Amino acid sequence: MITSQKALDIILDNTIDFGIEEIPFLESLGSVLKEDVKADRDFPPFNRVSMDGIAISYEAFAKGQIDFKIENIQAAGSEQLTLKEHTNCIEVMTGAVLPQHTDTVIPYELVTIENGVVTIDTKTVNDGQNIHQQGKDRKANDVLVKKNKIISAAEIGVLATVGKSMVKVAKQPSVLIISTGDELVEVEEQPTAYQIRKSNVYTLVSLLERLNIKAETRHITDDKSVLKQKINQFLIDYDVLLFSGAVSKGKFDFLPEVLNELGVEKNFHKVKQRPGKPFWFGCKASLGMSEQNEKKCKSTVVFAFPGNPVSTFVGCVKYFYPWYKKSVDLVFENYQKAILAEDFTFKPDLTYFLQVKLENKKGLLIAVPIMGNGSGDLANLANADAFLELPSDQTEFKTGEAFPLIRYR
Amino acid sequence: MITSQKALDIILDNTIDFGIEEIPFLESLGSVLKEDVKADRDFPPFNRVSMDGIAISYEAFAKGQIDFKIENIQAAGSEQLTLKEHTNCIEVMTGAVLPQHTDTVIPYELVTIENGVVTIDTKTVNDGQNIHQQGKDRKANDVLVKKNKIISAAEIGVLATVGKSMVKVAKQPSVLIISTGDELVEVEEQPTAYQIRKSNVYTLVSLLERLNIKAETRHITDDKSVLKQKINQFLIDYDVLLFSGAVSKGKFDFLPEVLNELGVEKNFHKVKQRPGKPFWFGCKASLGMSEQNEKKCKSTVVFAFPGNPVSTFVGCVKYFYPWYKKSVDLVFENYQKAILAEDFTFKPDLTYFLQVKLENKKGLLIAVPIMGNGSGDLANLANADAFLELPSDQTEFKTGEAFPLIRYR
Repeated sequence: MITSQKALDIILDNTIDFGIEEIPFLESLGSVLKEDVKADRDFPPFNRVSMDGIAISYEAFAKGQIDFKIENIQAAGSEQLTLKEHTNCIEVMTGAVLPQHTDTVIPYELVTIENGVVTIDTKTVNDGQNIHQQGKDRKANDVLVKKNKIISAAEIGVLATVGKSMVKVAKQPSVLIISTGDELVEVEEQPTAYQIRKSNVYTLVSLLERLNIKAETRHITDDKSVLKQKINQFLIDYDVLLFSGAVSKGKFDFLPEVLNELGVEKNFHKVKQRPGKPFWFGCKASLGMSEQNEKKCKSTVVFAFPGNPVSTFVGCVKYFYPWYKKSVDLVFENYQKAILAEDFTFKPDLTYFLQVKLENKKGLLIAVPIMGNGSGDLANLANADAFLELPSDQTEFKTGEAFPLIRYR
Repeated sequence: MITSQKALDIILDNTIDFGIEEIPFLESLGSVLKEDVKADRDFPPFNRVSMDGIAISYEAFAKGQIDFKIENIQAAGSEQLTLKEHTNCIEVMTGAVLPQHTDTVIPYELVTIENGVVTIDTKTVNDGQNIHQQGKDRKANDVLVKKNKIISAAEIGVLATVGKSMVKVAKQPSVLIISTGDELVEVEEQPTAYQIRKSNVYTLVSLLERLNIKAETRHITDDKSVLKQKINQFLIDYDVLLFSGAVSKGKFDFLPEVLNELGVEKNFHKVKQRPGKPFWFGCKASLGMSEQNEKKCKSTVVFAFPGNPVSTFVGCVKYFYPWYKKSVDLVFENYQKAILAEDFTFKPDLTYFLQVKLENKKGLLIAVPIMGNGSGDLANLANADAFLELPSDQTEFKTGEAFPLIRYR
């Protein structure tokens, strides 16, 4: 049995390059940017008026002039006007280009206007004030956003500004989530006493949706030959197979055997952790045609999580998430940590994923343990916000100690 | 001019009830739950085997018996079997119902099987072990998830488990985002020297998408009569109008005047903050028919943000976000805080929204100032993660002090 860290290392050695695609920028929110976004021109692109008011030549004011005849109005979006008489002024609007032969803007609040003449009511006017100079923020060809980050609303704004109506982003993997287990019925069905409804596949679909991955789902009955035949095809059609269940020691836990027979190389089975110990991970370098990928040769990665709800959940956020992020070259965030709110003891030589509720106290992230009833207790996940990852080489975890945090909301 | 806190108070006094709708549970990720989710039966719904192995009657083992003949196999999803001979055993799989007349499960790892007979290889067997007792996690009718929280993957799993294939969630407001300003051109257009591309509307669309709101967008030219005619119709058709620009003192900043003429009551104009001072907010109690809402009488709320990119951005996350959350009765998270990483000075009597990059150091949220070039510097938003809200009654902000945090990624 390997450690959780070793398992993660192996998984991160088996990433896949899903490729790059170009999509409309407004659909790219949440995608991973795959090109540096550069300024197409200076920002601002011209000497931009930054207050509504009047534009003058500072020289005239410096010589003691306080009354300026209004020559014209410079609106935002209009071609640049020229001040004809340098002792006159032009009314200017925020966002407008600064008129030629003017260099200073005085806001309306500090002037009086009467009969087409402006009187400046203040003594403090600075040469060049209230002008956002061309190129002050960024120069043409400056990199505004580096690639390999998730596109947020801020990046959408930048893309719009520089005219990137189409943007290169990471292609998403094709993922199939497969449930097994004859005790499972559909959500809309009424289970008999000994059946339960499918839930793990939908939890996984939702966890992947947070990564902008649209996963498909399938159910296979606990029949070895059916399992084998179907998985054989799935290995050709998908980049990633996520299984929930059928990896333990049960009579009908055919999965490791079937995957082996189909040529999927086992990287490990069982990890020193709770919950989620019987986790199986393997890869297949496939030569099959993949319609989804338009790649002739590809490999498929198989994450087979134990079927208990909390085990599946931990498996996805602890292993699949980092695997995906490395696959798309996402700049890795520092490992987030949170501070344990109360003493906790866990004796087995296993990494323990403690369910916690998060509180922010004056900038400290506090993790309050939410004890449920173990790996079967799905409802407890809804009461918590995150897992605190307690290392296997420690048994007493003290109030105030910081541990790695895996948030899921 | 009012304070930022007063502005927020006024806004939160003008929330709208958008109503409730029922949608397929798998589409509800990110929505606000509008019903308590109850357990439809006990969890687990039966005495559930939690290890693959054999089920016995503990009494037989207690009497010294270690060899048990296998009578049958109890698979997950199969009807409950009955142990006929109480000195025999039944093989049981994880997830299966515990067979009648058995009460204890011994995992395969601790037994040897030969010729249909199991020999128990351990002395430590506890009465009732490895059984997840019916109702241990939750009892039928227990509330598993309370309403008024955002549905995450964990809640999706709970909804599936209890058979809520349709779930009640908050209806979303109909929102129109309107840009004004004749200097603006479309993203795919090549602007002339004195024009710029539209970006604020797309930033706002993306910020609203994070709340699962699908907003529409429109552009109106700087023409008072056109503006008036169009806005008149928008006030009938939408719950919320978000404007960017045309609220300042410019000659073509018709918006406050037009809104006033259309009967939108001004709650305030201008807030003691930087950036985003000329923010205008008002409401109209309308009697018009709203097709979107199927409500005969409704009110429309108008957020008119200043047109600078950072001003618009701050306005949305500082005011619209809390307004939306209160409107849908979202349980308010505690005001998050972060710790300032370096000394900062800001003298004006204004709330200052400082752009910061966040770091997590051993559970402390550290805010590192990212100084841009003011409210026009959109690219700086892409370098930062959040705003730190520095109060107006303070001018020196010291390293290590915690201040309210508004994250946008």
